[in-house]
Amino acid sequence: MTSILIIGGGGMVGQKLSHALAATPLTGPDDAVTLFDLGFAENGAPATTRVTGNVTDDALVASLVAKRPDVIFHLASIVSGEAETDFDLGWTVNGRAFWNFLETVRAEHMASGGIYRPRVVFTSSIAVFGAPYPDKIDDTFLCAPQTSYGAQKAISELMLSDFSRKGFLDGLSIRLPTICVRPGKPNKAASSFFSGIIREPLNGHEAILPVTSDVRHWHASPRAAARFLRHAGTIDLEQVGSRRALNLPGVSCTVEEQIEALREIAGNDVVALIKHQPDAAVAKIVAGWPRDFAPERAKALGFRAESNFHDIINTYIEEDLPKS
Amino acid sequence: MTSILIIGGGGMVGQKLSHALAATPLTGPDDAVTLFDLGFAENGAPATTRVTGNVTDDALVASLVAKRPDVIFHLASIVSGEAETDFDLGWTVNGRAFWNFLETVRAEHMASGGIYRPRVVFTSSIAVFGAPYPDKIDDTFLCAPQTSYGAQKAISELMLSDFSRKGFLDGLSIRLPTICVRPGKPNKAASSFFSGIIREPLNGHEAILPVTSDVRHWHASPRAAARFLRHAGTIDLEQVGSRRALNLPGVSCTVEEQIEALREIAGNDVVALIKHQPDAAVAKIVAGWPRDFAPERAKALGFRAESNFHDIINTYIEEDLPKS
Repeated sequence: MTSILIIGGGGMVGQKLSHALAATPLTGPDDAVTLFDLGFAENGAPATTRVTGNVTDDALVASLVAKRPDVIFHLASIVSGEAETDFDLGWTVNGRAFWNFLETVRAEHMASGGIYRPRVVFTSSIAVFGAPYPDKIDDTFLCAPQTSYGAQKAISELMLSDFSRKGFLDGLSIRLPTICVRPGKPNKAASSFFSGIIREPLNGHEAILPVTSDVRHWHASPRAAARFLRHAGTIDLEQVGSRRALNLPGVSCTVEEQIEALREIAGNDVVALIKHQPDAAVAKIVAGWPRDFAPERAKALGFRAESNFHDIINTYIEEDLPKS
Repeated sequence: MTSILIIGGGGMVGQKLSHALAATPLTGPDDAVTLFDLGFAENGAPATTRVTGNVTDDALVASLVAKRPDVIFHLASIVSGEAETDFDLGWTVNGRAFWNFLETVRAEHMASGGIYRPRVVFTSSIAVFGAPYPDKIDDTFLCAPQTSYGAQKAISELMLSDFSRKGFLDGLSIRLPTICVRPGKPNKAASSFFSGIIREPLNGHEAILPVTSDVRHWHASPRAAARFLRHAGTIDLEQVGSRRALNLPGVSCTVEEQIEALREIAGNDVVALIKHQPDAAVAKIVAGWPRDFAPERAKALGFRAESNFHDIINTYIEEDLPKS
């Protein structure tokens, strides 16, 4: 029996993970899953317990850690666009609250006489990187974030790594590709349109494309994200060694290739719903984002993503497109 | 007239910088230099003002920033060995206090209506890197620190960079090589012996070598460190671009090469004062440290170090060896 805490368990990726853990438990059917988030959808993902609250509430976080979950998935964060417009909010939630969370785990480790040492899986992001880039970013390329969100993710990785090295917990940061196709509504992430231009037309709605179609980017489906997390919750971290942040596999393609994949799957009328409406602010942020990776370490550790954008669209249609 | 604040101005590098600024002012003879540190040597470096206190004293730091110094050199930190043995102290001083300092500068920037935007030069370290390494570390190699000190320096760099990007201040982190030959007494840095094996014998005292003589490392003199800092205080940061952390030039050599340089300069009797006394704890830390760099960006920006270890020893003899 494994007890699992998912911080940010009410979000899209958290729900996908919760479904994946229900379908394939880490240990067995008596695994206990606690979801913690600001709120939960009515027909949300399966869970043993749901806790509503804010990651900045140190006492509440401490009460959850005091239950000594074996595995903690930390997915909660202010998204990139919002962390850029609200500097204080981004640093408070993505910086200070994450640090306090680590200190809480350390305190529990100490209180247990060094016995409690949970696996902590942190969802980092390819936003830790900044231009200029090589053609493919390899596993030894520097973090040079060009957004506050990226800086906060890179800092959280460094902290998680140091707390792991000291033996207070056993952490792994996984740098998720941009998750595409996100179901539901657009969010405040600057990357929201990468999903919007597929999801909205498939649902019969117009979608705004704020950048030019030659923009190349790095994608994985929500299903792949859940699998990455589940895998990170169980792999042998001795194999990972001391570098506890991993670039993950994904699909590198241009917006034009995304659109052509949509055309082949859904036809011209669907593609016609995409409207090009340049947005300089979004274009500026996206211009600094990675385009392609050579994630050899993660591949060797058994992380798997889709192999092309067609698969990513088909995953959306299969898992998330509302059935008419 | 330039007003300068040196946080950590009572330390060895801070004193060297203060002497360098007295000899060659940033603007002219009416430059005002404030040194801030836990304490000052009796015959310390020149300064307009000396302030005694702790960088963790937020109110005191705020009072110094409220004077709106044009250039702030931030040199204060818990050293590597101590940050490793006292986890809380390291994170409090090298992490939390640095963050609070940046927030204080930001608050002053805001209070000034956006006019106050000081140059902030932060002394980072090659401890931000972690093994395994390429033969030479280039300017795009990842930070993967294997000490808490290294993690704290890498995190401070990321924060300084983000506060700079947002325009609250104009920051640059310089990753100093190991400073050698340090004058005075051994300190708690794990790197202390690199200086000790030169300084102590030159002063007629025994020195302990805790590692094997094939250990290769990356050095620059205190004089070079002061010049790096002074240069970082004045260069055009537009040229530096968005990556605000620089690997600096230095001298790559083995302990054996250090010893042979000492032998050529001072003779066999002096070298005979070096006693090999293996220390597994020090050897383990040092094994994870960088050996050589290709610091092309810093060279192109005009940073200069010594070209060999003989020069480093001669700098010590010239500047710091007590005259008998």
